[in-house]
Amino acid sequence: MSENNQKSQSHGKLLVLTPGMGAVGTTFIAGVESIRKGLSKPIGSLTQMQTIRLGARSENRSPLIKDFLPLVDLDDLTFGGWDVIPDNAYEACKRAQVLKSEDIEPISDFLKGIEPMPAAFEQKYVKKLIGDNVKEFTTKKDLTDQLRTDIQNKIKETGAERAVMVWCGSTEVFMSPSSCHMSIEAFEEGLKNNDESISPSQLYAYAAIMEGVPYANGAPNLSADVPALTQLAIQKEIPIAGKDFKTGQTLMKTILAPGFKTRMLGIKGWFSTNILGNRDGEVLDDPESFRTKEVSKTGVLDTILQPDIYNDLYEDLYHKVRINYYPPSGDEKEGWDNIDIFGWMGYPMQIKVNFLCRDSILAAPIVLDLALFLDLAKRKGKKGIQEWLSFYFKSPQVEDGHIPEHDIFIQHFRLKNTLRVMGGEEPITHLSENFESYT
Amino acid sequence: MSENNQKSQSHGKLLVLTPGMGAVGTTFIAGVESIRKGLSKPIGSLTQMQTIRLGARSENRSPLIKDFLPLVDLDDLTFGGWDVIPDNAYEACKRAQVLKSEDIEPISDFLKGIEPMPAAFEQKYVKKLIGDNVKEFTTKKDLTDQLRTDIQNKIKETGAERAVMVWCGSTEVFMSPSSCHMSIEAFEEGLKNNDESISPSQLYAYAAIMEGVPYANGAPNLSADVPALTQLAIQKEIPIAGKDFKTGQTLMKTILAPGFKTRMLGIKGWFSTNILGNRDGEVLDDPESFRTKEVSKTGVLDTILQPDIYNDLYEDLYHKVRINYYPPSGDEKEGWDNIDIFGWMGYPMQIKVNFLCRDSILAAPIVLDLALFLDLAKRKGKKGIQEWLSFYFKSPQVEDGHIPEHDIFIQHFRLKNTLRVMGGEEPITHLSENFESYT
Amino acid sequence: MSENNQKSQSHGKLLVLTPGMGAVGTTFIAGVESIRKGLSKPIGSLTQMQTIRLGARSENRSPLIKDFLPLVDLDDLTFGGWDVIPDNAYEACKRAQVLKSEDIEPISDFLKGIEPMPAAFEQKYVKKLIGDNVKEFTTKKDLTDQLRTDIQNKIKETGAERAVMVWCGSTEVFMSPSSCHMSIEAFEEGLKNNDESISPSQLYAYAAIMEGVPYANGAPNLSADVPALTQLAIQKEIPIAGKDFKTGQTLMKTILAPGFKTRMLGIKGWFSTNILGNRDGEVLDDPESFRTKEVSKTGVLDTILQPDIYNDLYEDLYHKVRINYYPPSGDEKEGWDNIDIFGWMGYPMQIKVNFLCRDSILAAPIVLDLALFLDLAKRKGKKGIQEWLSFYFKSPQVEDGHIPEHDIFIQHFRLKNTLRVMGGEEPITHLSENFESYT
Amino acid sequence: MSENNQKSQSHGKLLVLTPGMGAVGTTFIAGVESIRKGLSKPIGSLTQMQTIRLGARSENRSPLIKDFLPLVDLDDLTFGGWDVIPDNAYEACKRAQVLKSEDIEPISDFLKGIEPMPAAFEQKYVKKLIGDNVKEFTTKKDLTDQLRTDIQNKIKETGAERAVMVWCGSTEVFMSPSSCHMSIEAFEEGLKNNDESISPSQLYAYAAIMEGVPYANGAPNLSADVPALTQLAIQKEIPIAGKDFKTGQTLMKTILAPGFKTRMLGIKGWFSTNILGNRDGEVLDDPESFRTKEVSKTGVLDTILQPDIYNDLYEDLYHKVRINYYPPSGDEKEGWDNIDIFGWMGYPMQIKVNFLCRDSILAAPIVLDLALFLDLAKRKGKKGIQEWLSFYFKSPQVEDGHIPEHDIFIQHFRLKNTLRVMGGEEPITHLSENFESYT
Repeated sequence: MSENNQKSQSHGKLLVLTPGMGAVGTTFIAGVESIRKGLSKPIGSLTQMQTIRLGARSENRSPLIKDFLPLVDLDDLTFGGWDVIPDNAYEACKRAQVLKSEDIEPISDFLKGIEPMPAAFEQKYVKKLIGDNVKEFTTKKDLTDQLRTDIQNKIKETGAERAVMVWCGSTEVFMSPSSCHMSIEAFEEGLKNNDESISPSQLYAYAAIMEGVPYANGAPNLSADVPALTQLAIQKEIPIAGKDFKTGQTLMKTILAPGFKTRMLGIKGWFSTNILGNRDGEVLDDPESFRTKEVSKTGVLDTILQPDIYNDLYEDLYHKVRINYYPPSGDEKEGWDNIDIFGWMGYPMQIKVNFLCRDSILAAPIVLDLALFLDLAKRKGKKGIQEWLSFYFKSPQVEDGHIPEHDIFIQHFRLKNTLRVMGGEEPITHLSENFESYT
Repeated sequence: MSENNQKSQSHGKLLVLTPGMGAVGTTFIAGVESIRKGLSKPIGSLTQMQTIRLGARSENRSPLIKDFLPLVDLDDLTFGGWDVIPDNAYEACKRAQVLKSEDIEPISDFLKGIEPMPAAFEQKYVKKLIGDNVKEFTTKKDLTDQLRTDIQNKIKETGAERAVMVWCGSTEVFMSPSSCHMSIEAFEEGLKNNDESISPSQLYAYAAIMEGVPYANGAPNLSADVPALTQLAIQKEIPIAGKDFKTGQTLMKTILAPGFKTRMLGIKGWFSTNILGNRDGEVLDDPESFRTKEVSKTGVLDTILQPDIYNDLYEDLYHKVRINYYPPSGDEKEGWDNIDIFGWMGYPMQIKVNFLCRDSILAAPIVLDLALFLDLAKRKGKKGIQEWLSFYFKSPQVEDGHIPEHDIFIQHFRLKNTLRVMGGEEPITHLSENFESYT
Repeated sequence: MSENNQKSQSHGKLLVLTPGMGAVGTTFIAGVESIRKGLSKPIGSLTQMQTIRLGARSENRSPLIKDFLPLVDLDDLTFGGWDVIPDNAYEACKRAQVLKSEDIEPISDFLKGIEPMPAAFEQKYVKKLIGDNVKEFTTKKDLTDQLRTDIQNKIKETGAERAVMVWCGSTEVFMSPSSCHMSIEAFEEGLKNNDESISPSQLYAYAAIMEGVPYANGAPNLSADVPALTQLAIQKEIPIAGKDFKTGQTLMKTILAPGFKTRMLGIKGWFSTNILGNRDGEVLDDPESFRTKEVSKTGVLDTILQPDIYNDLYEDLYHKVRINYYPPSGDEKEGWDNIDIFGWMGYPMQIKVNFLCRDSILAAPIVLDLALFLDLAKRKGKKGIQEWLSFYFKSPQVEDGHIPEHDIFIQHFRLKNTLRVMGGEEPITHLSENFESYT
Repeated sequence: MSENNQKSQSHGKLLVLTPGMGAVGTTFIAGVESIRKGLSKPIGSLTQMQTIRLGARSENRSPLIKDFLPLVDLDDLTFGGWDVIPDNAYEACKRAQVLKSEDIEPISDFLKGIEPMPAAFEQKYVKKLIGDNVKEFTTKKDLTDQLRTDIQNKIKETGAERAVMVWCGSTEVFMSPSSCHMSIEAFEEGLKNNDESISPSQLYAYAAIMEGVPYANGAPNLSADVPALTQLAIQKEIPIAGKDFKTGQTLMKTILAPGFKTRMLGIKGWFSTNILGNRDGEVLDDPESFRTKEVSKTGVLDTILQPDIYNDLYEDLYHKVRINYYPPSGDEKEGWDNIDIFGWMGYPMQIKVNFLCRDSILAAPIVLDLALFLDLAKRKGKKGIQEWLSFYFKSPQVEDGHIPEHDIFIQHFRLKNTLRVMGGEEPITHLSENFESYT
C-alpha cells in the first residue's frame, strides 16, 4: 500500500551516467531492467530492500527505506555511458561474462538500445586498456566541453529531469595530488595546458559537477578527491562521494576486523591474495594501476583496529595484500585470506577465508544505491563530500582533517541515522533498556 | 596514573568458583596467575584491555573499562572449583594440553595448591564423562547442602569477601524444562524427591544463588534457565547470566551474518562442521549431549537475519551444523563453514571459512569478564538475568517474552552503554554529525 | 589417419543399458551425443583420449587406446534405460541440473527420443526414492523375466548387435550376503520365493548375465558381488565389474594417499566431509543407504597404506567419513578433507583439500569407458570379475581371496598393461635405464 | 634379526657435510641424533623405513631397503658444516624455531659440539643473507683450496672413512650458465680470475668432487648443474644429484597432477601461492633469488602433463606461482593452491589445497636419504648425474638431452627398480596377472 503510494507519486526521471560500460556498468543496467520486468530481485540494494526502524521500538514502525524517503523509482531511471570499446550494452554484457544468456536475452532489445558515447581517454593513464571509441581533442578543456555536451544531450534524449554520474571505469595509474589540483583556478588552468597530472576520471568529475550532476567514484582513482574538485562541488552545491566500491576481500575485512576487535583478540598477521581474470584484473596487472588499488586496500585495517590505542593487540600486525591476474577465473574473482590472530596468554589461532566472489554482482547494487542517494541528497540541499555514504567504499573520501571510518557496522549506523534525519525523524538512541536491533 | 589510583583502592577479594576444572577452568586460572606475574597479557578480556568512550567525542575521554568502573583487580582474585577428576590445577592443566610446558612451569606451585572439591555428579547426565571424585548423597537436597558448605568454606579458606560462580563443566544431556522447574517450591520439592529432571548443573546454580553468589553458565545446559531459578535469583537479589560461551564457529557466525545483512546479501545455505578432540568432543560424541549443543548453535542465524522481514533474502536458508569427535585435533578445535550467499539478480557466491581455533583460549577471558562483571552487577544492585551480558553467550538467556539478540555488534553496543550508565555517564547517542566510533 | 581406418572398420552397434536415468545416466547419454555432433570433447575418458606406449621407448609408438584396440566407435552406440520416474532423457536431464540449457537444447530431439522403461523396484530398498514408473509383479522371477524381455526388445528396437549394462541407479540399503546369494540355484530359488535379501540391482545383474550382457555396477550396492552372480558370470562367459564409480573425495584419496606413502610420511588422522544436494544426497540421507556408501568409502586407506607393515606411520590413523545432505549444493557435490600428516621426528603438518566437484561429470566418462571395455573384454573371451577395471571403482570387486588394490597409480598401470596384452603387445617393463613414462 | 646382521656389519663411518647449517641442516642433524638415542623415528626417510619387494609376489620377500642394501648405519654418521653465522648447531637449532625445546634439550651437548666452519661466501649472491663467519680470500681458487682443506680436516677430526656433501644453504641469485661453466679448464681458469659467474655453491661442489666426495644440491642454484662440474664428476668418478629438495607445494603438485592425468581430466589453470617467514622466505624476498626458485617450480607441470600430446586437456593451462615473505608464519610455510580442472563436456570443477607445511621437517629426511644413497652409489661405482634420485628434487638434474621426469610415482618406480638392480635382483615386471603392489 504505502509502496503503491510512493509509486503513484513520481520524483521525476533520473538519468544514470556511467563512465565505463564494462562488467560493472552493464550488470547494473541489465539488473535494473530485469527487476523492472519482474525477472529479478534487487538483492544487495539497501534502497530497494532494507527497512528502517523509526521512533521507539514499541511504535513498531519499520518501513522500507524506499517507502520512507522520496527516492526515484526504478521505473523512472534512464541510462547513458561512455566506453573506449564501442559495443552496445548487450554486446558488452555478453563479453563481460558476468550474466548468463538466459538472463540477458529477455532484455536484449533494451540493452541493444544503449550505445556508449566515445570516451575521454588517454592510454597512458590505464596502460592495459585498449579501445578506439575515444574523443579527439587538442586540450583537456576540449574534452570537458565535449563531456558536458554529452551530458546535456543525453538528458534531453532520454527525457530525464536530472542526472547523476557513477564512475564504473578502470583503475588509473597511481597519482598523488599535484599543484594543479589545489584550487579550482589551477585545475582549470591545467585543463587548458594539458597538465599531465589531470587524469581522465577527473575530466568526468569536473564535467559532472559543472553540469550540476552529483558524482560518485567507484574506482580508487584520485578523481574528485582533490581540493579543486571538492571546492567546486561545494561552490556548485553538488554532492559527491568516493572512492572504490567496497566489494570482495575488503568487504570481508571490514566485517571481520571489527568482530575481532570487539572481543579484544589480537592480530599478528593478515595475508590477502586475490585471483581475478576479467578486464579489471588485466588492468591491475600493470604495476602502476595496481599501486593505486593497493593503497586503497591497505588503509582499511589501521583505522578499524586503532593500533595506537591497542598496541598490545595490533601494533605488530603484518598486513600484506596481493592481486594476481589469473585469466581462468574470469569475472569470478576469488580471495584467499590467512589471518593470524591470538588470544588469552598470546596463544595463536588462524582463520582462513576463501571467498568465491563475483565482483560485478557485488558492485552493481552499489551503483544503484549511490545514484538514488546522491540524487536524494542533492534535492535535500546537501553538497560536497557525503561522508555518510562511506558504507559503500573501500577508501572513504572524507573532508580534510576527518578520519575515514572503515568499520562497516559503524558506517551502516551512520547511514541509517542520516536517512532518519533526512526523513524528519529522530536518530536512534540505543539505551540499554529497549535496545534490540538497529537495523 | 588513573590505573594506579584504581589499584590503590581495593574493591575486596573475590573468590571465583568453577564447577569443572578441565581445559577451560584451568586455562582461566593459569592465565590470571601468569598475567599477575607479568608473564602474559589478558588478551581477549574486555574488562582488562578495552577502552570506553565517555561523553562527546570532542571531550576525548576514553579510559580503560577497568579504570572507569570499580572492578575487582586481578590481584584480588582467589580460586576454587569442583571436578570429578581429583587432579589439582597443575595436573589438570598438563592433561588438558592447551598450554605449553613453558607457560605452566613458572606457575606450577600456585596451580598445585588448587585442588578440586568432590563434584556433585551423576553419570547419566554426561554419559562419556568418567571420574570418581564425587560426593556421596541420598537426596539431591544433600548435594546442594554440601555445595553450600563448600562455598562457605572456600570463601573463608581463601580470605575472600565474596564469590561468583562460573560453570566451566561439560555439556549435559538434552533436557526440556519439566514441572519441577516451574517454581521455587516445586524445585525444592524435587531436590528432596531426587527428581530426575534436576541435573547437576542446576544443583550448583541453586547452591550459588542461595549463598548469595552470582552465577554464569558457560555450557548450553538448561541449568539456571528455568523459572524456578530465575525467580530465586530475583528473590535473593542475585545476578545470573547464560548460556554457552560464545567461542569458535558461533563467534564467527555472529560476526559474519550481521555483515551480510547490512549489505542485503541473501543467504541460501550455511553448512558448519566442527572437528574436535578434547574431553568436550568426547562428551559431545554422545548424541544426547550433542542435542543440547546443537539447539544452542542453530538458533543464532534466525534472530540475526530476521527471515520474516527479509523473506526474499533469508527465508529459504538451509542451516546445518555438525560436530565431529576427531581425536587428532586435541584441544585445537577446527571449524569449517561453507556459506552460500547470493547477490544482485540472485547470482550465487560462496565463502568458505576454516577456523583453526583453540576453544579454551577463547573461553578463558570470558570466564574472567563474567566473574568481574557479575560481581560488579551485584554490588550495583542488579538481580536476575543480565541480558546486557549476551555478548558472551551462544544462546543468550533472556527474560520470558524477550527475544535474544545474537548480533555481536548490537550486543557489544548494549554492553558498553550499560557500562556507561552504571558508571554514571550518558549512553552514547550517535548523531550523524559527530559520529565516528562507538568503541 | 589411423583413426579414420578404425572408423571405417565398424565393430558393430552396441546398446548401452542404464538402470537409472538420473543425473549420471543422462549426463553420459547427452555427452556422447554432444561429442558425436562435434559440440563437446570426451574429457575424462581413457577410451577416447588416452595414448598407450607400445614397445621400447625408442620405437616411439604411442597410439590412442581407441586406435590400438577394436573398441566400438561412439557413432555405433545406442541407448536404453529404466527409471522409476517416467521422464524422457531430455526432461530428466533438465531436472538433474547438471548440464546447462545451452548444452542440452542442441540435442533435445535426440534426448526426447529416449524414454525409460518401467523399473524393477521396491521402495524398501531405497527409502527416499519415490516414483511410479515401476513394473508390476508377483515374484521377483517375474521381474527378471520382464527385464530380459526389455533387453531383447531394446536391442531389436535400436538395431544393436549386442549390449552392455551399467548400473547408474541409486544406492540401496546396506545388505550383507545371505544364504540365497551363495549359489546360482539358491539365488534362482530366492527369485521364485521373493527372498527379501535379493535387491532390485541384483535383478538387473541377473537378467543381464542371463541375456549375455556384460554388467558393471556404479553404486556400492551388493548387486553382482555375490557368489551366485559371479559364478553365473563365469558359467555364461560374461565379464562383470564393480563397485561404485570412483569420483569426488575418494578419487582424491586414492591420489593423495599413495603420494604420502611413497615419501614415508605418516598420517595421524583423515577427516572427510561431503555436502551434496542432488537425488543421490537425498537417498544417502537415509542411514541405511548411507551405511552402504560408508563401507565403500572407508576401506580405501587401509589397503593403500598397509598399516600392518608401516605401523609407525599408519597404525593409529583415525579415519572418519561424513556425508551430509545439503540441498543448496545441487549436483555440485563438495568435499572437504582435513589430513593430519607427520614427518621427521613426528612433527605434524596439515593438508586441507576443498573439492568443488561435479559428481555426474566425473562419473559419465566412466560409464562410457566401462561400456566399451566390457564389450571388448567379452569379445576377447574374458569372463567373470574384471579386476583390471579396478581403476574406475571406489570399492573394487575382486575374486575371493584377492586383496582389492586402491592405489590409483597401480590400478592405472595394471589397466594399461592388460590393454597391451589384449592388443598382442608386451607389457611394459620399466628398467631403470630407459625408464621415462609409463603412460 | 636381519637388521641386527646388518648392524653388526659396519660399512664404515661416513661424514655428512652440509654447507648451510640453518633450519634444514640442523633439523637433519638433530633428528639423526634423536633417532640414535631412540627418542624419535626417522619418519619421511625411505632408507630407514621403506620396504622393497623382491622377486615374484609369491616369494613374499619384502625387506626394509636398509636391510637389503649395504647402507651406512645411522650410528656411523658424523657431521660437519659451514655457515656465515657462527652459532653452533644447538644455537642454530634454537634460532631456527623448527624444533621444540623438549626435542632439542636432550641432545644439546651433542649439538653444541658441532661448530660451523667459516663459509665461502659473498653477499652479492644472496642479498638478504648477512653474517661474518666467512673466509678471507684473494681468488676463488683460494676459497676452494680452503674448502678442500676443511673437508680433509673434518674427515680426520671425526674419524670418518669418507664423506658426502649435501647443500643445505640458501637460494642464490638467478644465473644462467656462462662460458666459464662450459669446461673444466674454463672453470678452473675462472676460479683463478675470480669470474663473477662462479657462485659460492659452485665452489663447494668443485671442492667436494675434487676431494672424492659425492655432492647433492638441495637448492635451485645452478651449482653442479653445468658442464664443467658434471664432466669433472665423471672424470673423478663421483656421483652427484640435484636440484632443489622436493618439499611443500611442489611435492603436492607432483602427486596431484599425475592423478588428474591418469583420469584424463583437463586443467585450465593452476594458481599457487606460498607464505613463509623463515630465513628462506627472507632470502626469496629478493627478486633475484626468487627468480631462481620460480624457474625451478614452474617446469614441473609441463613434463608431467605432456600438453603437446594432450593438447585438448593441457595446452591452455595457465600456471602461476607466487612466493610471499610473511613473517608471522615462521618456519611453518603455508601453501594455497587453486586448481581449475574440467571434465566431461568441458564442465569446470575446482580443487583448493591448503598445505600447512613445515619445510625443514620435509627436507631433513631427504638430506639423510641422499647422503646414504650417494655414498652407496659411489661404492657401487656410479658416477656423474644420478637421475634415479630425481624422486627427491623439484628440478631434477639430468644429462644433456634427457627430459627430466617430474611424476613422483614414476620417479619412485625408477628409484626402487634401480635399488633392486644395485642389490643384484631383477627389476619388477608388472604383468597383469600377478600385479598387486609395486612398493
